[in-house]
Amino acid sequence: MEDMEKLIARYADIDRLGQVSGLLMWDQNTYMPPGAVSMRGDQQALISGLSHQMLTSKEMGGLLSRLKKRKDLNEKNEAIIREIDRKYKRATSIPESLVKEISRLEPIATEKWVKARENADFSIFKDILERMFSLKMEMAEYIGYEEKPYDALLDEYEPFMRSSDISSVFGSLRNRLIPIVNKMTDVCKDVDISAVRKGYPIQLQGAYFKMILTRMGYDFNRGRMDVTAHPFTSGGMDDVRITLRYDEKDIRPGLFATIHEGGHALYEQGFLKENYNTPLSEFISLGIHESQSRLWENIVGRSRGFWEHFYPGFKEHFPSMKDVSLDDFHKAGNLVEPSLIRVEADELTYSMHIMVRFEIETDLIEKKMDVIDIPQVWNEKYEKYLGVTPANDSMGCLQDIHWAMGAIGYFPTYTLGNLYSAQFYNTAVKENRGIEDSIQNGDLAPLLSWLRENIHKHGKMYTANQLVKKLTGEPLNEDHFISYLKKKFSSIYDVQL
Amino acid sequence: MEDMEKLIARYADIDRLGQVSGLLMWDQNTYMPPGAVSMRGDQQALISGLSHQMLTSKEMGGLLSRLKKRKDLNEKNEAIIREIDRKYKRATSIPESLVKEISRLEPIATEKWVKARENADFSIFKDILERMFSLKMEMAEYIGYEEKPYDALLDEYEPFMRSSDISSVFGSLRNRLIPIVNKMTDVCKDVDISAVRKGYPIQLQGAYFKMILTRMGYDFNRGRMDVTAHPFTSGGMDDVRITLRYDEKDIRPGLFATIHEGGHALYEQGFLKENYNTPLSEFISLGIHESQSRLWENIVGRSRGFWEHFYPGFKEHFPSMKDVSLDDFHKAGNLVEPSLIRVEADELTYSMHIMVRFEIETDLIEKKMDVIDIPQVWNEKYEKYLGVTPANDSMGCLQDIHWAMGAIGYFPTYTLGNLYSAQFYNTAVKENRGIEDSIQNGDLAPLLSWLRENIHKHGKMYTANQLVKKLTGEPLNEDHFISYLKKKFSSIYDVQL
Repeated sequence: MEDMEKLIARYADIDRLGQVSGLLMWDQNTYMPPGAVSMRGDQQALISGLSHQMLTSKEMGGLLSRLKKRKDLNEKNEAIIREIDRKYKRATSIPESLVKEISRLEPIATEKWVKARENADFSIFKDILERMFSLKMEMAEYIGYEEKPYDALLDEYEPFMRSSDISSVFGSLRNRLIPIVNKMTDVCKDVDISAVRKGYPIQLQGAYFKMILTRMGYDFNRGRMDVTAHPFTSGGMDDVRITLRYDEKDIRPGLFATIHEGGHALYEQGFLKENYNTPLSEFISLGIHESQSRLWENIVGRSRGFWEHFYPGFKEHFPSMKDVSLDDFHKAGNLVEPSLIRVEADELTYSMHIMVRFEIETDLIEKKMDVIDIPQVWNEKYEKYLGVTPANDSMGCLQDIHWAMGAIGYFPTYTLGNLYSAQFYNTAVKENRGIEDSIQNGDLAPLLSWLRENIHKHGKMYTANQLVKKLTGEPLNEDHFISYLKKKFSSIYDVQL
Repeated sequence: MEDMEKLIARYADIDRLGQVSGLLMWDQNTYMPPGAVSMRGDQQALISGLSHQMLTSKEMGGLLSRLKKRKDLNEKNEAIIREIDRKYKRATSIPESLVKEISRLEPIATEKWVKARENADFSIFKDILERMFSLKMEMAEYIGYEEKPYDALLDEYEPFMRSSDISSVFGSLRNRLIPIVNKMTDVCKDVDISAVRKGYPIQLQGAYFKMILTRMGYDFNRGRMDVTAHPFTSGGMDDVRITLRYDEKDIRPGLFATIHEGGHALYEQGFLKENYNTPLSEFISLGIHESQSRLWENIVGRSRGFWEHFYPGFKEHFPSMKDVSLDDFHKAGNLVEPSLIRVEADELTYSMHIMVRFEIETDLIEKKMDVIDIPQVWNEKYEKYLGVTPANDSMGCLQDIHWAMGAIGYFPTYTLGNLYSAQFYNTAVKENRGIEDSIQNGDLAPLLSWLRENIHKHGKMYTANQLVKKLTGEPLNEDHFISYLKKKFSSIYDVQL
């Protein structure tokens, strides 16, 4: 076999181990008996160990070093080599002992975090979190970076992005968001939230969500829908599974999680068969992945146009909505209300939750603050950005599992998703003016086609920056997101923003 | 690490790959989206390839050859070495090219079999079945055998057993069964089958079956229950999953499959934690596994004593049973009726279905007959043993998937299961006379304790023959099974047998 073919074959096996590991994770969250936790941990450790061995093998190193010198390869193969080489470098740069130490720390840190959260007592979590940050800082040094150590960690979730880029765009975003949040908080005080809290039998919700997913273009022949405590999308290619949760009283948690996960799933189902098991059937970054989910959830799924088509059927499907007008439903679905909990935040205030976390984790990595100061800094920032103060650490700095799992550099990707989504959507409707009309007529196919053609089908061919520039003609910026928010909220609530 | 520890660690990884492969199989049969078939095939091929590499590695060979020379090891370690060495020898004796050829043939042969069955036309299946038998005969030569090539194939499913042993016990069994079958067929002509066909809502069945499994001692914390077209038990140790199917009209398919699979699952849940991931937490043979399922399904689950306790609750649970007496229910649940389809056969005639298959497959492997003659021989044997003749090959020699999958030497293990179960149960009640009374009082724990202590906890410590001798004081024979059948059916139907 020729080198390129060999590389693709070896990588396909690594990719397949990833698929297997993904299924083990899905099963653990859906159907696995509770007593199997320890067995499952051993299975996962074995699979990830085998995957690491394959990725860091001498053969892989040799193939990559020979292929990187070649000048005769096409653009696709060059992208494949670039991406596998990135993984190879990252995997070979970190000593195995450190990888294992972090892996061992994760479940213990998670356990401490659970306990700390239950007791609303950060001090239970403090020591182990210090250890986690210190190991991650060590890891950053091994990986290397051009500007800041945080970049080495961020790179795992948002490749090729730097914290300075994020700081700059987040800074402008924050300044422009704060007045909108303040105004909207005031305007929304009288919104009747009961319009989305009328009671929705779970069976009916399930049927409705399946219909919505099908209308979005989600292929149930290559996917399925299950129930978990925290919704997520897993798998890829021909096996992309969605999970969601139901709230019998409130339609929002189930409905918007479905559209959100559906957006993730459409991305994964949109890779080309010819690229399966290569980096060209992988997502670019978590930010780009999140752009797909948020585009569907917020820009489409919370839009007036979408519900102009779907609301009559929705009302018919859920008898409890009989007396609720589209206006009231739409307002309640877009209620702005500064709150303490990120996962419950509305579209407008959500980014402020992310800023707090991003600022704290960069300061920690840059040693500008200490872990012990997290609760105080957290609460100050919440007061400053959102005007709310957590009553205790469980409602504050202990609410998210990310840091306990060593996911440092992950948070900003949520907000990057919002920014990318608005920037992409702006281009999509400029290029195809029919997209918005189609949505209003319940036809979501033109939007999906645009996403498929311009984003999904490329896999990891381009970096996030390259793709954004190529598609929108501009680098990533907050303008489109801000314009979108202003236009949307001023129209819903008839207010100047 | 010392050699013994190394062997155990290496084998644990191989075992874990087996667990992963089992979960992939379970998922494929329960929740996997249909479009993922091809991906799943690639994942399974990768996992089994990795497992084969680990098992046949030079390191494994070295460890085994050094350890086999040691005289200082305890009985447990000796059994572990014996069993891993058996696997190693088998895996290294067959050329990889032949393994791959058989693997490639399996899905194609299965496809042809499906088509042949749909069209009730054996000729569609004939050529590829010839190829399968010829490859399996080649395989038998590589594996080696002392008496007959069939033994090499049988050894995969029923280790250490020889076809001559089976022929001898099956011969006596057949001769003693035929008059009982004839008599009972006549006696059962007037049984009112409607007593088990009263209609049973699926929700109610599910709840009832869960209750029965719990009462049997099945641990839902280390298992679960799902629905598939063909019931099966998968997994092991702390993750043993059962599947079953529901028939809304007839309670038997669901009820007896549940108890049957429950018996399999109790065996798997009965290994000792200290032996996990070694051969001492594996079943001895398919025959021994089947002895557990059939003991629970038939000897317990179709017994008068069991239903004397459970029937009042059953009647209350299923309102459709209101007017059905325990007598009528019990008779209908034990109806004897020679039929064409193995999986629908009753306890008494079941073995005759197996004889037909065993005799044909041994004759084929010993070249005493040709594949082309299967339909004719099959039909003649059905007429001779059961007095029925298939209207076509779909009702006859095309009904089972086993041969298409290369499972030659598998069928006799079903009947071995019946023989083992009766022989074990006879000893159990001799050693603990309280077992039968307890069952009659709805307390199934004494029986499970006996099985745990005498069979489950040993894993593969003993061979099937050793265990049978050790427990019952006799070699495997058909006496206890025949006595059990005579006693049971003569009592239910008040007839001399």
